[in-house]
Amino acid sequence: MKLKLYYAPIACSLVPLITLNEAGADFEVQPISLKNGQQRTPEYLRINPKGKVPTLTIDGEPLTENPAILTWIAQAYPQAKLLPAGPKDAIRALSLMAFCASGIHPHLGRINAPARFCDTPGSEDSVRKLAAAEVHKAFKILDGMLAGREWVFEHWTAVDAYLFWVWRRAGQFKLELSAFPGFAAHAERMQKRASVQRALEYEREVLAQAEKAA
Amino acid sequence: MKLKLYYAPIACSLVPLITLNEAGADFEVQPISLKNGQQRTPEYLRINPKGKVPTLTIDGEPLTENPAILTWIAQAYPQAKLLPAGPKDAIRALSLMAFCASGIHPHLGRINAPARFCDTPGSEDSVRKLAAAEVHKAFKILDGMLAGREWVFEHWTAVDAYLFWVWRRAGQFKLELSAFPGFAAHAERMQKRASVQRALEYEREVLAQAEKAA
Repeated sequence: MKLKLYYAPIACSLVPLITLNEAGADFEVQPISLKNGQQRTPEYLRINPKGKVPTLTIDGEPLTENPAILTWIAQAYPQAKLLPAGPKDAIRALSLMAFCASGIHPHLGRINAPARFCDTPGSEDSVRKLAAAEVHKAFKILDGMLAGREWVFEHWTAVDAYLFWVWRRAGQFKLELSAFPGFAAHAERMQKRASVQRALEYEREVLAQAEKAA
Repeated sequence: MKLKLYYAPIACSLVPLITLNEAGADFEVQPISLKNGQQRTPEYLRINPKGKVPTLTIDGEPLTENPAILTWIAQAYPQAKLLPAGPKDAIRALSLMAFCASGIHPHLGRINAPARFCDTPGSEDSVRKLAAAEVHKAFKILDGMLAGREWVFEHWTAVDAYLFWVWRRAGQFKLELSAFPGFAAHAERMQKRASVQRALEYEREVLAQAEKAA
């Protein structure tokens, strides 16, 4: 089975990258430069017409959307226990992945590129402020869920990788996050995992190469 | 097993309502008036702290996010074949549900309530225009997928219900949709299904009662 992850530094393709590392999978990574618009080249749009990362190709067949990609990886590497096994926790895990994808990521996107949401001159601060309020609301829920726990479920799962990414992204935007100590401690634990360290090391390499090429 | 769907007319809680009808499930519906802010009452926030619909409670335990709710219903009523059985199609179905939830619904939300995305005076048209462009991009992909097909997969699935909802919502906003004949024909087929007719009839009743109470 040939796996290739189309990945961009900083973007939410970090989540399947960490998860593939945790799986012990044999896979290739294809960096896509969002800055240079590589996600909109005809070549990439043939693989993912949505023009987004991540895409995971499985023997050449593209799979998109993190909840589906993470579910696929977990099913393909059952010994790695990348999602909870019990049916109640499994469906709760899917709910949390969907929440990250649809209830948090879109707000982070507004903070990242406000002009894509409103091109009225001088509206950036308004777009960012309203989006940050939504992120805070979501983080309050997640912080409560993580309080006193090592991971969301009984053992580490891909949901933890997704939570780590939304937390990290919010931090990169310098959102005020001091009200969420449970979530902060979770992110610290994540940073100690080999899978995460390897993924972040790879990100640094890709970013350094891009800088050299520019 | 006691099922209760917290539902609001017009909202994406239509998708699990149709799917529960297709399942032949025995369930109760609890209407939530978004207009009157019932989603933000302490009582409802105890059930779903995100303050959104749908929530499906299963013997009192709340499940949120459509991709998870639809997956749960499909697993609970296997004889109804509410999602594809083959592993390749099953993961593609999850990808499509996630796409509706995170790649389309958020844009529809911007058209619905632009002031929640930017409160700079006079910015509504800008918010709506940029969101409509994203909806059109997504619909082009879905239209190509539906061209010449009855349903997305070999038989009707909950994915069809989700696609129907995003299509209907875009129509309610009077978006120009004439470029998507395959998607339009799919919506017409959906409207002929008993499950959909029952759900829309129920929606009319809830809306009529709300009007009478106002």
